[in-house]
Amino acid sequence: MIGLEDCRALDARDPLAAFKARFAPGEPGTIYLDGNSIGPMPADVPRRIERLVTLGWRDARRRGWQRFDWLEKPWRLGEGIAHIVGAGSKDVIFCDSTTVNLFKLLAYAWRLRPERPVIVTEAHNFPTDLYVAEGLVRFVGGNAALRRIEEPDALGAALGPEVGILCLSHVDYRSSRRWNMAEVNRVAEAAGVFTLWDLSHSAGAIPADLSGTQADFAVGCGYKYLCGGPGAPAWLYVHPRHQDRAWPVIAGWMGHADVFAFAEAYEPVEGVRRQLTGSPGILANEAMAAAVDIWREVRREDLAWKHRSLSETLVALLEEQCGSLGVEIASPRDYEERGGHVAFRHPGAGAVTEALLAQGVVGSFRKPDSIRFGLAPLALSHEDLWHAVARLRRVLESGIWREERYRTVSV
Amino acid sequence: MIGLEDCRALDARDPLAAFKARFAPGEPGTIYLDGNSIGPMPADVPRRIERLVTLGWRDARRRGWQRFDWLEKPWRLGEGIAHIVGAGSKDVIFCDSTTVNLFKLLAYAWRLRPERPVIVTEAHNFPTDLYVAEGLVRFVGGNAALRRIEEPDALGAALGPEVGILCLSHVDYRSSRRWNMAEVNRVAEAAGVFTLWDLSHSAGAIPADLSGTQADFAVGCGYKYLCGGPGAPAWLYVHPRHQDRAWPVIAGWMGHADVFAFAEAYEPVEGVRRQLTGSPGILANEAMAAAVDIWREVRREDLAWKHRSLSETLVALLEEQCGSLGVEIASPRDYEERGGHVAFRHPGAGAVTEALLAQGVVGSFRKPDSIRFGLAPLALSHEDLWHAVARLRRVLESGIWREERYRTVSV
Repeated sequence: MIGLEDCRALDARDPLAAFKARFAPGEPGTIYLDGNSIGPMPADVPRRIERLVTLGWRDARRRGWQRFDWLEKPWRLGEGIAHIVGAGSKDVIFCDSTTVNLFKLLAYAWRLRPERPVIVTEAHNFPTDLYVAEGLVRFVGGNAALRRIEEPDALGAALGPEVGILCLSHVDYRSSRRWNMAEVNRVAEAAGVFTLWDLSHSAGAIPADLSGTQADFAVGCGYKYLCGGPGAPAWLYVHPRHQDRAWPVIAGWMGHADVFAFAEAYEPVEGVRRQLTGSPGILANEAMAAAVDIWREVRREDLAWKHRSLSETLVALLEEQCGSLGVEIASPRDYEERGGHVAFRHPGAGAVTEALLAQGVVGSFRKPDSIRFGLAPLALSHEDLWHAVARLRRVLESGIWREERYRTVSV
Repeated sequence: MIGLEDCRALDARDPLAAFKARFAPGEPGTIYLDGNSIGPMPADVPRRIERLVTLGWRDARRRGWQRFDWLEKPWRLGEGIAHIVGAGSKDVIFCDSTTVNLFKLLAYAWRLRPERPVIVTEAHNFPTDLYVAEGLVRFVGGNAALRRIEEPDALGAALGPEVGILCLSHVDYRSSRRWNMAEVNRVAEAAGVFTLWDLSHSAGAIPADLSGTQADFAVGCGYKYLCGGPGAPAWLYVHPRHQDRAWPVIAGWMGHADVFAFAEAYEPVEGVRRQLTGSPGILANEAMAAAVDIWREVRREDLAWKHRSLSETLVALLEEQCGSLGVEIASPRDYEERGGHVAFRHPGAGAVTEALLAQGVVGSFRKPDSIRFGLAPLALSHEDLWHAVARLRRVLESGIWREERYRTVSV
């Protein structure tokens, strides 16, 4: 049995323990396990944003472009998290939303080989990933098609010679099942298929290795484990071998070789930056920068240790303390097959989630019977997990979750 | 000759005079004539953003989606400025950047009639408008083509039966030349051509009449005259007759009929909202909302009076006070043909702009010899213009602009 003292002992060994103080604590007594939804706020965000809007917007106005690094932020931010996702420092930019970046890279990859017009994805991928792919297929028409596999082991057989792109979420947003990126990339490469990964549910929780595993393309959001805040810019990665092969599909002035020349002819800048489109989200980028300035100091191996330790501790605590109360782990048992969060089932999951909220534990419910605890490694301790699970146990033991007031379940 | 007292008399009649106090004043003594670049900041922006990041991000985290109106902001913001651009209140949304919105609507309009695959635009349109159109044409291939007209009077002849879309900026970003939207829409409709307008250099300065003139599509940025701040969300408009005709080209979860159902099949929501893509820019939307809450109170006819009065006063002051010092109006003489800013030529325009900056007047330079004064009607008085032009006269009379230190020209 894992006790409170065991959790404290793990915290004493935690190489990232000091980072917790870099984040604002939130509501007193609340334990936030929704890093898979919106991650914690770096403590200096209010000060940084206030500085931006007063010195930048109010005072400098257009001169903000000269006085500050507004123009460079998209790639400076990318450099700052590249080591966390295993990308070259010049291969990542922050821009637009995950949805728009998915479209941009899917369309870009598609045009590189229109003679292989089929896109393969998972039937249960995150909705926007499915919609974007279906929308692209409808737009380009012709032989373009979207093929959905129902189960992971159907992947190999699905990658025929007509397939150009394999588009997967690294981690399933419900079960937290994680693909073996290295293996999938090998299979795809052997089949002559490009890979496009969505790392929204892993980046900032689990170190990825995009370059090392030869991923072709990737996207991810900034507001979950990367802690960029609600409405944060998303990021995208293009392997160097593809960066300069074609025009971007959305050719915008921020991707021009000379942004402020106002040339009438488009000339894409070299590298991943040609995927930039319109004016950067300057407020959102400043909030993201507060988080990225923390990520710059985080070592990959420390992140790997911390998240694994949190995730394994949480699974053990849930089973030991709540296994006899109807809780069943829904995520894969093997850590290497799990993503940023841990999902578990309970027959009253919706009401339990609401009752837990009232006890100061923020998780999230997914139909029909699943609760997700997202583990943001920089701002959580093992002791936090112990208290969260203890509160869950009390909610289940007391039966308080059956009360009428917990029947209305929030998003 | 227009004197300081005349300007004060106009200010005394100004129906929008009280709005100036709703904006933060900026650097003491500085007159900001860069509303065509980044508009003034509503005074309550710092407080609103601080509230959002502390109560929303830090404390509420994922529960912010329930506690606040983050999800609804894109169309609530659209409702708030619809009267300013002459659109139905349900026909405008804020989302993404101008560049991305241009792509979305251009591609959407293109797919409605692929049998008319030619897009017509101006050779000297704003760069990103040209790039996006050229990028789309390259992506779809086939018979798609971009046709650029050199002069306005070439428009009618360019709209042959192979043309599907006419894509124009309402106002030229350099000269401030304004198209007659009603007339162009009539010509386009008679030729069976859809119109897509970019109102970035008019919205918030000059009331537009998108619905009344039967414009098909429009986009615009939020950070210029609309005062949404650097990185503000852009907006888009789709005439009701086109809103439900097809899937959006970038089909994202925010445009789904039931956003939080996480359905695997895409079903576009009815109306313009299907053009929403990914998660909204929540920080940027809050800053935009501070401005939109002001716009809700602004009457179209007052905006029309104020901007015309400012623009005509500025032209007269420039000619009277600086005409003999080498200043020549570059914008159209007729107010009905001018947009949000006034452009004027001077042989030393770049250095003059820098010398003016040192005197506390923020204008902007465009190669080779043009200076632009952008007129944000809610935060400027006629007296401001008098002082700005008086400072310009002193800069020119004194010859101070010839000094070495003013040779390096900023963007």
